[in-house]
Amino acid sequence: MSSNSYQKLTVRLEELTSLNGIAGILHWDQEVIMPSGGVGFRAKQMSTLAGILHEKSTDPAIGDWLRDIEGQTTDGFDAYQAANIREAKRDYEREVKVPKRLAQEMAELSATSRQVWVKARQENRFGDFAPSLKKWIELRKEWASHVDPEKGIYDANIDAYERGGSTEKFEGIFEKVKKELIPLVKAIQENGKTPSSSFLDGDFPTEKQKELGQQISKDIGFAFDKGRMDVSVHPFCGGSHPTDVRITTRYRSDNFVESLYAVIHETGHGLYEQGRMERDRDLPVSEHLSMGIHESQSLFWERMIAQSESFCHCYLPKFKEAFPEKLENISVRKFYEGINLSEPSMIRVEADEVTYPLHIILRFEIEKGLFDGSVSPDDLPEIWNEKMETYLGIRPKTDSEGVLQDIHWSMGSFGYFPSYTLGAMYACQFFNTLKMQDSAIEDKIKAGNFIDIKKWLNESIHQKGRLYSTDDLVVQVTGESLNPDHFIKYLKDKYSNIYQL
Amino acid sequence: MSSNSYQKLTVRLEELTSLNGIAGILHWDQEVIMPSGGVGFRAKQMSTLAGILHEKSTDPAIGDWLRDIEGQTTDGFDAYQAANIREAKRDYEREVKVPKRLAQEMAELSATSRQVWVKARQENRFGDFAPSLKKWIELRKEWASHVDPEKGIYDANIDAYERGGSTEKFEGIFEKVKKELIPLVKAIQENGKTPSSSFLDGDFPTEKQKELGQQISKDIGFAFDKGRMDVSVHPFCGGSHPTDVRITTRYRSDNFVESLYAVIHETGHGLYEQGRMERDRDLPVSEHLSMGIHESQSLFWERMIAQSESFCHCYLPKFKEAFPEKLENISVRKFYEGINLSEPSMIRVEADEVTYPLHIILRFEIEKGLFDGSVSPDDLPEIWNEKMETYLGIRPKTDSEGVLQDIHWSMGSFGYFPSYTLGAMYACQFFNTLKMQDSAIEDKIKAGNFIDIKKWLNESIHQKGRLYSTDDLVVQVTGESLNPDHFIKYLKDKYSNIYQL
Repeated sequence: MSSNSYQKLTVRLEELTSLNGIAGILHWDQEVIMPSGGVGFRAKQMSTLAGILHEKSTDPAIGDWLRDIEGQTTDGFDAYQAANIREAKRDYEREVKVPKRLAQEMAELSATSRQVWVKARQENRFGDFAPSLKKWIELRKEWASHVDPEKGIYDANIDAYERGGSTEKFEGIFEKVKKELIPLVKAIQENGKTPSSSFLDGDFPTEKQKELGQQISKDIGFAFDKGRMDVSVHPFCGGSHPTDVRITTRYRSDNFVESLYAVIHETGHGLYEQGRMERDRDLPVSEHLSMGIHESQSLFWERMIAQSESFCHCYLPKFKEAFPEKLENISVRKFYEGINLSEPSMIRVEADEVTYPLHIILRFEIEKGLFDGSVSPDDLPEIWNEKMETYLGIRPKTDSEGVLQDIHWSMGSFGYFPSYTLGAMYACQFFNTLKMQDSAIEDKIKAGNFIDIKKWLNESIHQKGRLYSTDDLVVQVTGESLNPDHFIKYLKDKYSNIYQL
Repeated sequence: MSSNSYQKLTVRLEELTSLNGIAGILHWDQEVIMPSGGVGFRAKQMSTLAGILHEKSTDPAIGDWLRDIEGQTTDGFDAYQAANIREAKRDYEREVKVPKRLAQEMAELSATSRQVWVKARQENRFGDFAPSLKKWIELRKEWASHVDPEKGIYDANIDAYERGGSTEKFEGIFEKVKKELIPLVKAIQENGKTPSSSFLDGDFPTEKQKELGQQISKDIGFAFDKGRMDVSVHPFCGGSHPTDVRITTRYRSDNFVESLYAVIHETGHGLYEQGRMERDRDLPVSEHLSMGIHESQSLFWERMIAQSESFCHCYLPKFKEAFPEKLENISVRKFYEGINLSEPSMIRVEADEVTYPLHIILRFEIEKGLFDGSVSPDDLPEIWNEKMETYLGIRPKTDSEGVLQDIHWSMGSFGYFPSYTLGAMYACQFFNTLKMQDSAIEDKIKAGNFIDIKKWLNESIHQKGRLYSTDDLVVQVTGESLNPDHFIKYLKDKYSNIYQL
């Protein structure tokens, strides 16, 4: 009977996977290819689909199947099946525990507060957005009290993106990072040496950029028979399935590095999706483990590989072929230094790898304060600007380049930001392990030979899906839990070398 | 209460429209843009969606709402609402009257018999496909006995594509057409004059063809902010909504006319969709009236407008600009004659407007015989070839260029073929009316001014949706029911002139 219930459960889970894949295509289509006039009806399609997804994922039958499975001995289930049951239970419970009224309020607030945020940012007025923010905090508090009453409120929100994460864990890590990075940022600024990067500005035909991007994505291992690469306003990795993964980039004719590294970043996400396990591929066990681990895969390729000197060694000749005028006299070292400039800046998404974590820590501290009551939403602009000055030595002049810059809070996404920096740290720790296991890695990168690297990621991470917790996986792969020392040492070594500190 | 039920009904109908729109995008995506590796999972997505559509459109609640509405006086409903109720009732009843077992058998046969047909056509063996065809006839007979027991079996199948059509009606029309066209085809063949068309063969860069196609589509009135034009193996008009209509074409570098007229044909379909009424646009009343009327819109633009001498007069200079080498010394008259060659050929989809109806009549007669038992499936190749010889004077050498050429029967689509030629006849009758109402039409075409033509079609046909029956609409627009004389006279006049008969 319980195996019968398991069978029924997986049929439903595969149906949900199928519907989520459809939503993925509709989203991609809207961002990449849909005519502008279609936007109104597409919203209707999306909401119809969301309604069906909600209905099917909160169907009481799922609860019955799960109860039936739990009532039996689980000896009959292997690790994959056990993971599917665990994930299904978590998803189901989190869905059904939220009262319908609250779900509706959150859906409505999502729609309205996004508009309010867009306008407030345009007009530089945090005050206009503050009521929406307050409402979100209220709703997310209530949400947390339903889905995870035994956790702290911010912890419950964090857990939605980074399962197993907590305020306490992140605080310990971020304090360490902060303590080391603030002086590093300062030292870079004060040493007076700024590598030249003027050769990165110029006129770079889009067609050439596209060719290069596709070539590198392919070299790294992106399978174009199971994916596409297109253009959108904001680069992303979407699609509908491991056999249909769609990455995007955007082109600026005056800068080819930005688009290229966006391609490499999204290729990293894409390889994770394409590399998912074959068995149970349409069931939860095969899905990505967490936001942080997903981000580790994009940053692994973007930073560990593609921003390294070995990679520049391999690809600079190809860049020169594509853009001879600008790059003719540029050495590998000069190119490497040029693409690795570090400088404090107001906008998180434009920040380099040294300053980026401080943007994240600032947001983490503010979110924590918003939920424990130590920070009042009305004080946010001032608190934001103070922290920017303390951490990065610069102070936003307007709300738009400060507290209003990110879309996340307008969608009620609290606890999401840490994943970006966790990803950077995981990437570094994974890369250190790989280098220890394969001493020829640098030579392989220099030769443009990425097969072994991709294979290692496929086998160590992608194919593991949700079989293990994030912490277990990291221990399994690297021999220890997340350890920020790897990341700190990497940044210190790299930038001491570039800036001769 | 009944208005409450109507309200509930329309919410469901809009939801179905939304889901059908999603299916439209998935289909378009698969034909145009999906990576090859995604085909397996896309099939799963489509079948999940089809299952949900079936569930939602056979929901007994729809029956309850309809019964409730019918139990009340309908005085409260206007013509639009009445049409929505009528259409909903028809769709619902046709869905629920089919036993689940039969629906499953048809779905399974669709999948298998398509494969069988592909292979049989490749290998030129009708005998391999005959069992599938027999099974289809059996299932479509049973289907007809459930959904429309008071109609003849073939009539019920016809009615699925061309509501109000019947064997008897079509027979009367087709007999007339056949009687006139067989001698016309013969006269064209025997008169010995073949206009030159060698200037249509050459090397025509795809990029130029694309520009021309987009320009003409735009000139005619296709709104590119509510649609797209792309490339697919078989040209089609798809998309998800009147605000998101997607036409496709294909390019052959050795022939630009084929692609261009495919664009114009699909633009005709696209204008119908983009031109649908504003009110109740997501409800059945706004949908296209029938396959025949849809085809009349594509053929109106392709044949009545774009294959006319006036159109050649307007666009030949633009064609010469795009392809100067090949067309430099070609006169409008020569070009017009060149694109209007008529010659019997084996393959329906490649046939010209004079011979095409005979391909259709042949299929109509065979389908009629298959359902009334006067034709045995096993005799089809012979019957097919005999008829080809009688009607067109040519005889297929293989099953693949004869009885196996069309996909329709492998999908169980019987009664679909007549719509193609009904469309051609409607197009002609509509155009005659328009010319009588606006004596400046030819001048407008010569000037490339299509606004009034598009407006007339929008107002007379597109915006009428399903308010009237096909026959009522045609009478309303042209003052009489479908009358094949218009079509026959058009062909006789045009080709007597070109071939100097």
